[in-house]
Amino acid sequence: MSVFTSVPAATLADWLRHYAVGRLVAFEGISAGVQNSNFFVTTTLGRYVLTLFEAIPRAELPFYLNLMAHLARHGLPVPGPIADRDNEYLGTLCDRPAALVMRLSGRSDMNPGPDRCARVGAMLAGLHLAGLSYGRRQDNPRGAAWRSATAARVRPFLPADEQALLDAELAFQAEVDVSALPQGVIHADLFRDNVLWDGEHIGGVIDFYFAGRDALLFDVAVTVNDWCTTPAGEIDPVRCEALLGAYHAERPFTAAERAAWPAMLRAAALRFWLSRAEDFHLPKSGEMVLVKPPAEYRDILRLRGAGAPCLPGV
Amino acid sequence: MSVFTSVPAATLADWLRHYAVGRLVAFEGISAGVQNSNFFVTTTLGRYVLTLFEAIPRAELPFYLNLMAHLARHGLPVPGPIADRDNEYLGTLCDRPAALVMRLSGRSDMNPGPDRCARVGAMLAGLHLAGLSYGRRQDNPRGAAWRSATAARVRPFLPADEQALLDAELAFQAEVDVSALPQGVIHADLFRDNVLWDGEHIGGVIDFYFAGRDALLFDVAVTVNDWCTTPAGEIDPVRCEALLGAYHAERPFTAAERAAWPAMLRAAALRFWLSRAEDFHLPKSGEMVLVKPPAEYRDILRLRGAGAPCLPGV
Repeated sequence: MSVFTSVPAATLADWLRHYAVGRLVAFEGISAGVQNSNFFVTTTLGRYVLTLFEAIPRAELPFYLNLMAHLARHGLPVPGPIADRDNEYLGTLCDRPAALVMRLSGRSDMNPGPDRCARVGAMLAGLHLAGLSYGRRQDNPRGAAWRSATAARVRPFLPADEQALLDAELAFQAEVDVSALPQGVIHADLFRDNVLWDGEHIGGVIDFYFAGRDALLFDVAVTVNDWCTTPAGEIDPVRCEALLGAYHAERPFTAAERAAWPAMLRAAALRFWLSRAEDFHLPKSGEMVLVKPPAEYRDILRLRGAGAPCLPGV
Repeated sequence: MSVFTSVPAATLADWLRHYAVGRLVAFEGISAGVQNSNFFVTTTLGRYVLTLFEAIPRAELPFYLNLMAHLARHGLPVPGPIADRDNEYLGTLCDRPAALVMRLSGRSDMNPGPDRCARVGAMLAGLHLAGLSYGRRQDNPRGAAWRSATAARVRPFLPADEQALLDAELAFQAEVDVSALPQGVIHADLFRDNVLWDGEHIGGVIDFYFAGRDALLFDVAVTVNDWCTTPAGEIDPVRCEALLGAYHAERPFTAAERAAWPAMLRAAALRFWLSRAEDFHLPKSGEMVLVKPPAEYRDILRLRGAGAPCLPGV
């Protein structure tokens, strides 16, 4: 459950008068998300999602909110933040930084077939292409520096075989040169629960609060590791081909990306193994969030080390 | 019918590559609107409306497109224009200025009851409040100056009794001082066919191409004359009270507005009588649009001269 801050109805009704969205009709907490408090908010004029930021520093929020606005105005189904009467996206509610965003329709699908994987591949390419003209810059907050620091923190809690896996992977990744790969703003967390399906169309792509600048291919690897993986952790070639082919049709992969693909799949697996291991072994006090098992991404990392399907292209 | 320019599919598919909206799947002309060519466009990533501007000068379009973007980002159900990969809203297609906007859901209701009239009143107030922070400025293109010029053009075509009505109304309006009324960006054409209902919610407010700066109350009068009028042209007090009450709850009317209300209802009726009379008597060559009968608004103008219900307030 992830409503960390309770918001009295009268307080919210007053706060909404800063906006031009009409009167509060109803609101309820949303039990999803791991670092913010989220609420569905219905007013006389529309349906929105209210987010109270519990962990992200206020100074970093304009990067995310303006990114969402940028992608939404490029026609992508991203929840655009709502500007208040002073034209500001970021407000304050119950002593937290707070933002209202559009509520998009649809629900996530945890068993997507190849058609939906293809749509997600095309959407990811669309996000990458639209992101190229985004003016603000922030490095991927879960990039190489975070990886090293987090590995040092969790290593003491791991059994010997996992320590060996971690050491070998860090040594391997240290040799990978990502500077030749196309860079841009990446979502960095495009898991199945962050895509809302409205019939066969993608009604929404949500949760941009891990976004940052990195190799675009890293984002593709994060997405394939979640969308195109069997319960045993292996890549399903049919779904993988569908996703990569649709992406490639919108933004063709480069030769450098084809060479780096196996390493990127491993880097993406490492990133989620590390964050889950940290949440598991070093939980932040006071957080009552669902801790996802680190073993899933440990196994995916091991399997990716044994090889990966090729990227499409000549 | 209002597709004045035919667009080849291959031309549109090429043109869409300037955007990050994926590949063209399907498109079709829309037989509505009186001065642009409109198309529904479906791509692999979303559903949009394409507009080719046939009459509005290119230099005036940024006012409208940025207004729509401004209102959409304030959380109102207005079709936001889509930025291309160079971050521009306005493009060129088939030698016309062209823009892609979000396609909103819903359909119009030509027989709205008091509940829907109340929602429209609240929405109109929301548009006015959000518009206060819009930075660009353009006067109402169908304001007092246009009224005088158009009256001079159509007067020779009118029978004697209508000439007398027109002369009397112009003389009356010349004495009305609107400078004391709250001003802002008005939609100026919020007829029933420009509101899309998605269940009981307003899914879209469309057609902002008559918008401009004027007395906010003039917009309320345009809206009441369409939404709250009986087939005979009289104001239906139940629908009128619902619309005005909901507007007043969001943006309270001022004393000056209450005094000016009967005159504004007449000014709003005059505006549509004049534009319809001009379309009827002086049709632009080559236009194959549905000409609405001028008599409807001539009769509404006559009836409003006989009195009007009061605005709510103290």
